[in-house]
Amino acid sequence: VEKEVIQYLSELVSIPSLSSDISMKPEVIKVTELVKSKLIELEAEVKIVENEVDGKNPILLAKIGNNINKKTILFYSHMDVQPALKDDGWDTDPFILTPKDDGYLYGRGTNDDKGPIVATYFAIKKLLEKGDLPVNIAFLYEGEEESASGGFEETVSKHYDYFGKIDGVLVLDTSWFTDEKPSLDYGFRGISYNSIEITGPKKDQHSGLVGGIIREPMTDLVNIFSKLIDLEGRVLIDGFYDDVLPFTDKEAKLYENLEFSIDELRSNIGVTELISSDPKQIMLNMWRYPALSIHGIEGAFYGQGGKTVVPGTVKGKVSMRLVPNQDPDKIAALFKEYVEKEFFKLNSPNKLHVKNLGNGDWWYGDLNNFLFQAGKKSIIDYWGIEPDFARSGGSIPIIPFMEKIFNAPAMGLGVGQSSDGAHSQNERIRVKNLIGAIEVIKNTLTNCS
Amino acid sequence: VEKEVIQYLSELVSIPSLSSDISMKPEVIKVTELVKSKLIELEAEVKIVENEVDGKNPILLAKIGNNINKKTILFYSHMDVQPALKDDGWDTDPFILTPKDDGYLYGRGTNDDKGPIVATYFAIKKLLEKGDLPVNIAFLYEGEEESASGGFEETVSKHYDYFGKIDGVLVLDTSWFTDEKPSLDYGFRGISYNSIEITGPKKDQHSGLVGGIIREPMTDLVNIFSKLIDLEGRVLIDGFYDDVLPFTDKEAKLYENLEFSIDELRSNIGVTELISSDPKQIMLNMWRYPALSIHGIEGAFYGQGGKTVVPGTVKGKVSMRLVPNQDPDKIAALFKEYVEKEFFKLNSPNKLHVKNLGNGDWWYGDLNNFLFQAGKKSIIDYWGIEPDFARSGGSIPIIPFMEKIFNAPAMGLGVGQSSDGAHSQNERIRVKNLIGAIEVIKNTLTNCS
Repeated sequence: VEKEVIQYLSELVSIPSLSSDISMKPEVIKVTELVKSKLIELEAEVKIVENEVDGKNPILLAKIGNNINKKTILFYSHMDVQPALKDDGWDTDPFILTPKDDGYLYGRGTNDDKGPIVATYFAIKKLLEKGDLPVNIAFLYEGEEESASGGFEETVSKHYDYFGKIDGVLVLDTSWFTDEKPSLDYGFRGISYNSIEITGPKKDQHSGLVGGIIREPMTDLVNIFSKLIDLEGRVLIDGFYDDVLPFTDKEAKLYENLEFSIDELRSNIGVTELISSDPKQIMLNMWRYPALSIHGIEGAFYGQGGKTVVPGTVKGKVSMRLVPNQDPDKIAALFKEYVEKEFFKLNSPNKLHVKNLGNGDWWYGDLNNFLFQAGKKSIIDYWGIEPDFARSGGSIPIIPFMEKIFNAPAMGLGVGQSSDGAHSQNERIRVKNLIGAIEVIKNTLTNCS
Repeated sequence: VEKEVIQYLSELVSIPSLSSDISMKPEVIKVTELVKSKLIELEAEVKIVENEVDGKNPILLAKIGNNINKKTILFYSHMDVQPALKDDGWDTDPFILTPKDDGYLYGRGTNDDKGPIVATYFAIKKLLEKGDLPVNIAFLYEGEEESASGGFEETVSKHYDYFGKIDGVLVLDTSWFTDEKPSLDYGFRGISYNSIEITGPKKDQHSGLVGGIIREPMTDLVNIFSKLIDLEGRVLIDGFYDDVLPFTDKEAKLYENLEFSIDELRSNIGVTELISSDPKQIMLNMWRYPALSIHGIEGAFYGQGGKTVVPGTVKGKVSMRLVPNQDPDKIAALFKEYVEKEFFKLNSPNKLHVKNLGNGDWWYGDLNNFLFQAGKKSIIDYWGIEPDFARSGGSIPIIPFMEKIFNAPAMGLGVGQSSDGAHSQNERIRVKNLIGAIEVIKNTLTNCS
């Protein structure tokens, strides 16, 4: 099966299905059509629906089986990928699947999510070859995940009854928590992404002219930036931590069995040290405490070398990862209020405009439901070890959305490893993980029934 | 002559001679060849020499007349232009000269320096049509000014004896200080351009993974940025002001006759207020006091919308405008020392690398020499008013270099107006200024003799 797996993944990777670039829309359509044709080989009923948001990519809905005496399990993955250029520092062409001697397949999307899509396909194919499916299968594959799942909620809200009753949602869009042990995911952080726009001169200026005679927008922006978090990483926005749930003893137990190597994570990220040397603290900071990142500036000079431009308008980009029970809308409002307060202190003649660019809910799943029981058993059977029960610092706000609209619990089933570099250069997946995922998915469906 | 002036300028503007983009090198060559062919029409001896720095554009040297009993006046201008895209906010195609009813010609380079090159050409043409030239003329036209005059010093150092003795250098690369009054320039600020590189993760990361567990390089950089200047624009680098000359009473007199409208400058820049409401203070801040600008960040997110990237390495770009008697090399060293000191306080695991990207000398000319006397008389004769004697906040380090290598004084002769937008969108020049410049250049050469 390995050869066929590599063949299908290779076809998927060769299509640069970027959702971030409108000119690549035909590529996302192409990958959607390819996935459709493969599902039809499994005798699935497939429907591609237009995205309810203009310009956003269509969504693929499919189902196999309609036995009302069986559970129906829905698979979620995304077919779009992060941007990638060879020049960004890739060792190989990101859109040519390249197997290497290290047992990995390199290419954009191998881990996130083209590998998982391939594993799901072959798992179901194997079940079909054995005879009847233990459950009905549904597929909900989108093409906008890397662009904040644009239009997903609107579109699924319109078409969700295509599936009928759903009993569980399997999310295949995560990696193992470590490189050594499979994991099942039960939580994601939420997110609030905001911009701080500061406008001074009506046009970009030359520092030879305005240097020393105006308050430059960049000066104000870096001042605000410097007041968002302290050196320990604590967010300084008033009221930011008010709704973060207290850490309980019961919760603490969940972390006791996790084998987590701070050195491995440190080395994967490529830093000399993490913010703490206590593995438990690092896990908590990643999974169950919020954080703030400054991503960059739109409108400022970003090229190589030197340019003496004084930007007229700059937009600082800041996001916050949120946790139970922080409300993203409330946090965005607190952010705005705080930035406005700090800007006022600067007594600047420039204009400030704080804008929310998007919010997403956190997810916190129930480890006691049938999905996690089935997943755990399948992993133990195939890999011979208990999985890690993991949360993630990232955000997939459509998971809590799917739980609500389908009135069914969700579980994340990791396919690749933590060091695969899902959004980075040289993204990869281990062949062993793909083959293992096929078996685990197959058995999970059986154990669910 | 107006029609011919527009014709020549139109040809020059139509060639996008960007020095900042290596792929546009053929265009700079093309504009150099065009200028050469026009000078040959004036029976000049023209030589185009290779730039001594690899990849940099050639320099044009030319001369007309070799009467040893006459002075030799050298014209300096540059044939390259700043980048410009219609999408940047231009009302017209930047590379199609567009006359409008307001009496201006719009297009990239009209003010800086293609207009001045055209004015010089027609001034000399007129003198030749009248008979003998009052002085010998030399031309030194380069194609790298907008890229820090790369290779100019090396190349001119090799070829300067092509000209023989030079008595004065006329720099045609400035604008009037206001929109209403011609000006002669006697000073420029120097510059020191530096980058602050901070490296954390070996690759770009995803904020969902690293948010809260590493010290992000952006956090360190914005912290350093926020410590470079205070809200009054005062540079906080230790020792930065040590060598700035004290302001004397004699110097103060130079500012008394300047008619300078703070409102006009404010409106040209497009800000609601300048850093001071005192016109004299603004002039001093622009011309004779140093300043610091933060231009942007290389390596951070700069696109539209939201991207949850945590950049692995960021390079902050900062330049300082310098004045007599600050030494650019010494200032760059003080900058490095200060940034390293402030970074040390951050107690960060990230790596800091402060790098100097280039320095340039300030220039301070002598208002009593024959060039300024001749220029002043010519302006009074044509425009009927005394010129402003102006300095500039910008930097043309090759002026002090030319003064040294030719052992001759320099003078800046402004052609366009202050609101022409030399480095901005909708760059323009007034037809009236071009015609006036032709007469003023002609008479200045006569009055020099």
